[in-house]
Amino acid sequence: MEPKVMRHLFNPRSVAVVGATDSPDRVGYNLLESILYGGYAGKVYPVHPRLGTLQGLTVYPSLEDIPGPVDVAVVAVNQHATVETIARCGRLGIKAAICVAGGYRETGDDGLHLEERLVSLAREHGMALVGPNTLGLINTGADFYSTFYPLRLPKGNVSLVSQSGGMGLTMMHKAADEGLGVNKWVGGGNRSTLEISHYLEYLARDEETGVIGIFLEGTEEARELVRAASRIAKTKPVVVYKAGRFKTADFAALTHTGTAAGSYRMYRDIFMDQFGVLMVDSVAELVAACKALSLSKLPAGEGLGIVTHTAGPSIALLDLAARRGIPVPTLQEETIGKIKGVLGLNPPVVLKNPLDTVGVGFEAGIYGRVVNAVLEDPAIDLMVAIYCWHKNWRFPSPELLAAQRRSGKPVLAYYVTTWEDCREERRILQEAGVPLYISPEEAAGAVSALVHYSNASGREKDAG
Amino acid sequence: MEPKVMRHLFNPRSVAVVGATDSPDRVGYNLLESILYGGYAGKVYPVHPRLGTLQGLTVYPSLEDIPGPVDVAVVAVNQHATVETIARCGRLGIKAAICVAGGYRETGDDGLHLEERLVSLAREHGMALVGPNTLGLINTGADFYSTFYPLRLPKGNVSLVSQSGGMGLTMMHKAADEGLGVNKWVGGGNRSTLEISHYLEYLARDEETGVIGIFLEGTEEARELVRAASRIAKTKPVVVYKAGRFKTADFAALTHTGTAAGSYRMYRDIFMDQFGVLMVDSVAELVAACKALSLSKLPAGEGLGIVTHTAGPSIALLDLAARRGIPVPTLQEETIGKIKGVLGLNPPVVLKNPLDTVGVGFEAGIYGRVVNAVLEDPAIDLMVAIYCWHKNWRFPSPELLAAQRRSGKPVLAYYVTTWEDCREERRILQEAGVPLYISPEEAAGAVSALVHYSNASGREKDAG
Repeated sequence: MEPKVMRHLFNPRSVAVVGATDSPDRVGYNLLESILYGGYAGKVYPVHPRLGTLQGLTVYPSLEDIPGPVDVAVVAVNQHATVETIARCGRLGIKAAICVAGGYRETGDDGLHLEERLVSLAREHGMALVGPNTLGLINTGADFYSTFYPLRLPKGNVSLVSQSGGMGLTMMHKAADEGLGVNKWVGGGNRSTLEISHYLEYLARDEETGVIGIFLEGTEEARELVRAASRIAKTKPVVVYKAGRFKTADFAALTHTGTAAGSYRMYRDIFMDQFGVLMVDSVAELVAACKALSLSKLPAGEGLGIVTHTAGPSIALLDLAARRGIPVPTLQEETIGKIKGVLGLNPPVVLKNPLDTVGVGFEAGIYGRVVNAVLEDPAIDLMVAIYCWHKNWRFPSPELLAAQRRSGKPVLAYYVTTWEDCREERRILQEAGVPLYISPEEAAGAVSALVHYSNASGREKDAG
Repeated sequence: MEPKVMRHLFNPRSVAVVGATDSPDRVGYNLLESILYGGYAGKVYPVHPRLGTLQGLTVYPSLEDIPGPVDVAVVAVNQHATVETIARCGRLGIKAAICVAGGYRETGDDGLHLEERLVSLAREHGMALVGPNTLGLINTGADFYSTFYPLRLPKGNVSLVSQSGGMGLTMMHKAADEGLGVNKWVGGGNRSTLEISHYLEYLARDEETGVIGIFLEGTEEARELVRAASRIAKTKPVVVYKAGRFKTADFAALTHTGTAAGSYRMYRDIFMDQFGVLMVDSVAELVAACKALSLSKLPAGEGLGIVTHTAGPSIALLDLAARRGIPVPTLQEETIGKIKGVLGLNPPVVLKNPLDTVGVGFEAGIYGRVVNAVLEDPAIDLMVAIYCWHKNWRFPSPELLAAQRRSGKPVLAYYVTTWEDCREERRILQEAGVPLYISPEEAAGAVSALVHYSNASGREKDAG
């Protein structure tokens, strides 16, 4: 696939919306609204045979009536009319289209034949199609929101590719709830000309994309996909959440995108062990991993330091780290000495890693000095700092930011709190590169992601 | 342990706060503030040798100076002064105390001896102690918040018991973020006279508690605990999250509460298979399970129906259900006929379970009629309804509530959205007994919990 076509898909200078209507319950209405609501600054040409204006824009009776060039046709008509529209696009030299309608191979033989016609038209004219049977795509960097869900998202450097629009939305909403900005988002749908691997290859070269998150249900393009993901993972972190591990799920996957799902173990083994791609098991873990990889630098090694003023969460985290094979090294004598200096000569605590400051550590200044001491230990490559929200006491966020700058080592915060109570705190931390989590499982997923890609980049260097 | 003492601990008519101070950075200040901030209506006697008033209350120089009976002494002084305080409480006939200070067996031999003195004093005077080394306890039903974290929580019928205060807080905050109300909460701490099993036995009989959630790090009281949890799980759902599965975690657990953690598999096998207690693997799953068990009735069987208008999330859910052995039954011909009647004779979808309405189902009325049809199928015992948030379209919440009432079967909602965008929707659904989730994993955890306790209660009936 030509890079230029992909670039135009995500950064069109002009779009036609075929099937734009005035009924707010219709996909065509919402696709147009989505583009305008998102703040897209390029030219927008709604196409409808009879309407004069829509949402303040001049409507054109047909694609042929549009007065300027069109980079992308956003096609909101039904599956049959979509085929005709693609034929017209081809004749007019429009090189890219987003085909929303379903009703193709996922519905049986008739649909399969219709999709084959769609694909052969696209091939004949050298066109790239997103979908069909897709929610569309988003590029927050260009304020281009081409789905039928009008949205405005926080901007960031994570790009998400999903076979399923609904799972793609689930991931995107979870990212928003976590204060994680997204750059590009695409629902692959039936992937009739543009495969997942095409999106991946584009995102690999895309300078605005720092991390790639993927949701897969199983795919017949496995070999290409594995190759692409593996190549990319050498230079840019890729996080994969794969569903459809079981027979019963395969049948549903089949009727959705016409693809029989591969076995989970096969994918996981191939991706993770052989190809170095990080696999996760939930939406929460995918977003936790993407957040860490997006906001934090990679650690130089895998030694995890944990500082807390409350033991339980550090034990839960230690347990999860052990399951993932992440070492929580013993602290050096010198480090213990420094910590004694901060906490007093005979602190009422056992000094080790995880380092539990108990009550003394409620005071943010003391907490910060302990964090510094642990980060100075040569066995520690990254840190999770645990602290409980308190109505009358402040979080040690300035101390954590300073400690990260001072040490040059990644610092992650796990605050025991509601998102409700720490929205502003999260903004402060995350803008400065300290990802914030509020559960031990998500903090562990984040550590795991950083360690995985630190190890992978180490292997790269050794090999290179 | 006498039920009366436990009742007084959670519903005291009067409390003394020993070690109340005027420094907002001190535990004693915050324990007093917590009690007042929570809205406690009983008598509160702050005790401090020199201060005259605190937070608008008369301060008493000593326990002996308090003019009325004291049900509970909340002890905020250090570990040595705590021992003296318990001796005084005993002499004065105060039967219950919450001992916050750490510095006992979790710190080594000196601490162990101190704790032994504390326990022997408590035994001598027939006193019950919460802790020591605990955050304390909460009873939202009595507006009694006796921790040093001033809080006000949404009220509900879930009670939480945690060995660790910090993990207890993590669970409680997650519950608040999920719109789940809590009734009682207790941090067990070192459990020197009150064991986890005592709290469980009390909560089992407690009419305000409908569901019990537990966080454990491993415990030497395993036999008693398993017996208690098993007994309770026959009449009241119990959900257990157990950390400390690995050797490295054991060491930390040891220094926290002086208990070597048992193996995870041992606990899980004992609890789940032999004793019928539901085990979960994360805070998110614990809260998801407690939410379902708190808000929804139990299904009559385990047949799961899934309705969606977007395939991906239903495939992810199907996959997770399969992993947990939950059947997603084939729909009857009659059901398929009804659905065809709703969607039109030749709907552009494959009609099966999960039932994907595709675009047609965006309309809430149609969605609701499909939900009704699936719920009428005799193979379906409970339902997850999946729907994506849309700026211009409404959620089918009234339809889901009506369908649940009409069918008498549990309905769970999985909305593809942020919590930010569906706070009000969640309130409406959850107040009427439809728990709302925003990830497939949490929805699956909820289904799993309902099915587990439906099966368990079926076995009870068969046996009885």
